Amino acid sequence: MTLSKRQAYGSAILVMIAVGWGESAHAKTADELTVALDTIWVVLTASLVFFMNLGFALVESGFCRAKNTVNILSKNFIVFAISCLAFYVFGWGLMFGNGTGLVGMEGLFTIGGADNSPATGDAYAGAYKAIAWTGIPLYAKFFFQLVFAGTAATIVSGSVAERIKYLSFIVFSFLLIAFVYPVTGHWIWGGGWLATAGFWDFAGSTVVHSVGGWAALAGILVLGPRLGKYGAGGKVHPIPAHSMTSGVIGCFVLWLGWFGFNPGSTMAADPIAISHVFMTTNTAAFMGLLSATALNWIWDGKPDLGMSVNGCLAGLVAITAPCAFVTVNAALIIGLLGGLIVVCAVKLLDRLKIDDPVGAVPVHLFNGVFGTLCVGLFAVDKITGAATGNGLFNGGGTTLLVAQVEGILAVGAYTLAASFVFWFAIKALLGLRVSKEEEEEGLDIGEHGQVAYTGFANTGYGN
Amino acid sequence: MTLSKRQAYGSAILVMIAVGWGESAHAKTADELTVALDTIWVVLTASLVFFMNLGFALVESGFCRAKNTVNILSKNFIVFAISCLAFYVFGWGLMFGNGTGLVGMEGLFTIGGADNSPATGDAYAGAYKAIAWTGIPLYAKFFFQLVFAGTAATIVSGSVAERIKYLSFIVFSFLLIAFVYPVTGHWIWGGGWLATAGFWDFAGSTVVHSVGGWAALAGILVLGPRLGKYGAGGKVHPIPAHSMTSGVIGCFVLWLGWFGFNPGSTMAADPIAISHVFMTTNTAAFMGLLSATALNWIWDGKPDLGMSVNGCLAGLVAITAPCAFVTVNAALIIGLLGGLIVVCAVKLLDRLKIDDPVGAVPVHLFNGVFGTLCVGLFAVDKITGAATGNGLFNGGGTTLLVAQVEGILAVGAYTLAASFVFWFAIKALLGLRVSKEEEEEGLDIGEHGQVAYTGFANTGYGN
Amino acid sequence: MTLSKRQAYGSAILVMIAVGWGESAHAKTADELTVALDTIWVVLTASLVFFMNLGFALVESGFCRAKNTVNILSKNFIVFAISCLAFYVFGWGLMFGNGTGLVGMEGLFTIGGADNSPATGDAYAGAYKAIAWTGIPLYAKFFFQLVFAGTAATIVSGSVAERIKYLSFIVFSFLLIAFVYPVTGHWIWGGGWLATAGFWDFAGSTVVHSVGGWAALAGILVLGPRLGKYGAGGKVHPIPAHSMTSGVIGCFVLWLGWFGFNPGSTMAADPIAISHVFMTTNTAAFMGLLSATALNWIWDGKPDLGMSVNGCLAGLVAITAPCAFVTVNAALIIGLLGGLIVVCAVKLLDRLKIDDPVGAVPVHLFNGVFGTLCVGLFAVDKITGAATGNGLFNGGGTTLLVAQVEGILAVGAYTLAASFVFWFAIKALLGLRVSKEEEEEGLDIGEHGQVAYTGFANTGYGN
Repeated sequence: MTLSKRQAYGSAILVMIAVGWGESAHAKTADELTVALDTIWVVLTASLVFFMNLGFALVESGFCRAKNTVNILSKNFIVFAISCLAFYVFGWGLMFGNGTGLVGMEGLFTIGGADNSPATGDAYAGAYKAIAWTGIPLYAKFFFQLVFAGTAATIVSGSVAERIKYLSFIVFSFLLIAFVYPVTGHWIWGGGWLATAGFWDFAGSTVVHSVGGWAALAGILVLGPRLGKYGAGGKVHPIPAHSMTSGVIGCFVLWLGWFGFNPGSTMAADPIAISHVFMTTNTAAFMGLLSATALNWIWDGKPDLGMSVNGCLAGLVAITAPCAFVTVNAALIIGLLGGLIVVCAVKLLDRLKIDDPVGAVPVHLFNGVFGTLCVGLFAVDKITGAATGNGLFNGGGTTLLVAQVEGILAVGAYTLAASFVFWFAIKALLGLRVSKEEEEEGLDIGEHGQVAYTGFANTGYGN
Repeated sequence: MTLSKRQAYGSAILVMIAVGWGESAHAKTADELTVALDTIWVVLTASLVFFMNLGFALVESGFCRAKNTVNILSKNFIVFAISCLAFYVFGWGLMFGNGTGLVGMEGLFTIGGADNSPATGDAYAGAYKAIAWTGIPLYAKFFFQLVFAGTAATIVSGSVAERIKYLSFIVFSFLLIAFVYPVTGHWIWGGGWLATAGFWDFAGSTVVHSVGGWAALAGILVLGPRLGKYGAGGKVHPIPAHSMTSGVIGCFVLWLGWFGFNPGSTMAADPIAISHVFMTTNTAAFMGLLSATALNWIWDGKPDLGMSVNGCLAGLVAITAPCAFVTVNAALIIGLLGGLIVVCAVKLLDRLKIDDPVGAVPVHLFNGVFGTLCVGLFAVDKITGAATGNGLFNGGGTTLLVAQVEGILAVGAYTLAASFVFWFAIKALLGLRVSKEEEEEGLDIGEHGQVAYTGFANTGYGN
Repeated sequence: MTLSKRQAYGSAILVMIAVGWGESAHAKTADELTVALDTIWVVLTASLVFFMNLGFALVESGFCRAKNTVNILSKNFIVFAISCLAFYVFGWGLMFGNGTGLVGMEGLFTIGGADNSPATGDAYAGAYKAIAWTGIPLYAKFFFQLVFAGTAATIVSGSVAERIKYLSFIVFSFLLIAFVYPVTGHWIWGGGWLATAGFWDFAGSTVVHSVGGWAALAGILVLGPRLGKYGAGGKVHPIPAHSMTSGVIGCFVLWLGWFGFNPGSTMAADPIAISHVFMTTNTAAFMGLLSATALNWIWDGKPDLGMSVNGCLAGLVAITAPCAFVTVNAALIIGLLGGLIVVCAVKLLDRLKIDDPVGAVPVHLFNGVFGTLCVGLFAVDKITGAATGNGLFNGGGTTLLVAQVEGILAVGAYTLAASFVFWFAIKALLGLRVSKEEEEEGLDIGEHGQVAYTGFANTGYGN
């Protein structure tokens, strides 16, 4: 009988199965199946989170002008690659490595250090005790956390669009994921001081979204608004989207990705928690969509599709921290309020002449903060297992809420400060903003020597 | 040791695992693993079905004119949100709540009522006995059914495109998912009279697709054709697609989504049934694509990409009811015929001057009915477990076929009647159709005050 | 109690579960759960691989001119359908049927022959012994292999774009998947002579990608370059992409698809192997993206987005063979080199006046070959279970490397020879290239009588 290599490979697996799983009376059987089940759950949800990179790329490029499309797509494409490198070399160890309450100090440089995953609890021995609660192989843990890190960096991308130098953005992204995101991440998910202080963030309203939002806010304050956005006498000149089709594809892809982001953060195939998180996540999304659409419709007289998109994303960001800690009806209220907040925040930024082309700060910062507060307001102790204690509206007093405020302020202060340092350093060393001529002509020509849509006639507006 | 919250959360899970799953000699172990496995199967396939919203948005907007793109995308975006609200408040209880043969009467308003899921069979006690056969948590059941409900509403969207008022469409969608879809759904999947009568629809050729199709047909009969579509003397003026790229992305996304829609309808990780349904589903899709392309090529002299897309979708709709009840070779024939049917139905509607911009009625209604009949023709008893009895071509006589016809007629009558009532009521109260001027200028400006593709020069045709 | 059909169906499943899985002290329980888990892993990853058809459709159409978009989308759409038919009738049996070292000879025509899957190892009895190592139902095995076959055909599509006749391409695709792909596939994955000779290709750098690449190379040599691509005196006239948005969506979809392609090739939910393959796959992808971007940036002065896309795909193709056999740091080097190779190969083909509109030969052939060699260079024996032996750089000498070279040459020789025969036969019988007039006007009008973007004004360049 000829024996193919795949067959041989498969035989190896079969031997493994026979030894480890095949004898169902053996104590290890159910454990092995649990590890396998948890692993495929985590890698599949991580794949959905990876796909969010496409969502961001399309929302951001679609909501900007055609003349900057190659540049925005390039930024969103390379930012994930740079984040992977930064997280592989520095981020993972700083975030999840054993260390102090402030920072991880083991496991730096290509996932170094001992590790006996999928062992859990007391059986775990290795460099990453803070994430030893999930019983999956080390590389599955890493990959799941990697795609989360990538998300934080890509949030910045939209805010600084249409005027930032390509290389400067790449350098900032590396620094953010190597040295900023993992530090505050360590405080919360890496066994650091905020975790000890009773701060809860299930899937990252603060860890991921507000960190990206603070870094973005610092960036646009340093960069200044796009040419022509704000006229004399407080006039705002809207700069319309070049492709609402891209924007809507992007939003649906992000919504799908959130079904990995939030339920996947169980990092174990816990059926009750997963089902619950699917419900709260979807509920906040659709309510954010509805409330933002309605408020904007009433306010401006017509329903704006871009605001519907941002309302949906606002609901998703807001529910990210509390999704496993609150009821579905609370999710409904959180989504509803998130949608209202994003509409107001967009108007507020324009009044302050802070130019955020895609609304990343209203979506990710405002609602990241809001969602984190909602844990303190709406939490129901052990609703899916975690002992958060009750939130203020559920009779738990202000203990939890105070911890949430503490975390919001601490993460905001560190991220803003570090981001300003990096933005100013890059400005001094490389320059941050393209020339006025390049900005007018479009960054596609200036930075890349290409255009996005060859063959299409344009109106001279921004195509 | 610092203990992060995620660690604490994880520890809670670990305790759960240790108690429930860890001791493999304990009778509950395999049960717990089965629940977890079934749950991740259901939520992941539900996520694919959710993603079909993007597919519909792109097929529908791509196949219409650029000047209506914002409006079509907006409709497809908000229709899912409105469906979620309607199903959460009314639909779920009416469809799956315990009740009579005609309608569910428990569990209305935010999934109310008792429920001890994931208990199954006699162990189940609660408000949703009809769906107690699947052993997953209640919220996973709800979420899977929710994304199905959303599909029914989005089918209508394409047919009424390019002329319906945004608000009127939103209101109809709410009514459809609150009061029409769940009633016929109860008859078939909620333990109602059609189920008792021996009617079979595995994944919803009738429950979802033909219901959407009937509602759409009523809508376009009330609305009338788009301006300029039908000229004097029976002339048909084709209105070409503004983006075949959108159309093809949409179709691939829908095809992918169907790998959630049909195999996911097992609602349990049953390996034989799932594998079988993947095969029948994919086989009907590719044969529909090939046969529609070939017939249209012969008929019109050139292969039309839009018809290839609709052929593929036709095969998918047709196999939806019988996918778990027929052989793969039967699926091949069903797909082949589905592709031929859609080409003829498109021509027929044009001859009748019934204007369906995207072919939703040919795809979802004609093939929804056809696929439902195919159960009566091709069924093989217990081929994946279900005791359907044999179909006519498999020696089973006409018993099954008669039941299928009965269901088709009953669902069609109720859905058409209720839809007409709602369409006329909305017409009277809100108006249904935009003004002639708005239709000519495009609904993007009229309804939303936006355009989809700023910066691109247009030919004055429809961009 | 009314009993719905779904309930009845579900009850059937429950009975099955009760009998097979419910009694956890029974020896079969863990086996049944393993089959179910492996099956959902395989069908979900197969779905991701299916989705790669969209990725190819968008990269290929995006990178070509607007006037050929309908044609390219049509080709990528129908090529999967034709591949399905070819693989169902001929390919599956030739590739995986029991037979000689050269070709399978059982199981031809609609998956004929005996099979008792999910039985494995010695318990397996049937027509497909070479794939009996994975314990899943036959149809799940078939569907997974089917989507792989589809990938091989779609690779050809991009290279021959913008000048090939639609029908001729369809015919070639059928022949490739019916008679070429399964033969070399049998040698490697079907228990054939290359498997016996110690050749290893985990997920198909050779079996899928280089086969597609060789067939594409033969095609473009027979077809010749597009009009106007190569001027007098060795001048190369670049033909720019009509939509970088399509190109980038396509690349992200392909990257996502590769998380099915490579880890899914375990065809069993083996947690260690899956986690490892996710890591190596993603690492090679991001390094290929970074290295190709950097080299091209240095070389041409500006970072080209198209080259970033091809660098990413190059890394993915290169890691496909060795993903389960090498370390993550090796994957980093393989990706880095893959990115450099693709940049050089693109320049080389242009110097040789071989016109490959989307770079499919540099990506899939050059890196398919390179990745296959990397197994011989970097392999670490049993790193995830398979006894490959060590590669040259890991102290294993040249044994493995020689086998890899042997396989590369044999597969290349057969595929090139067969492809030339088929291309020339089709040229003689049907013609291969559209007329000069049609090529200038665009194949959308000539082959399909449609345009892709009605309503958009064009510059006369290629829209």
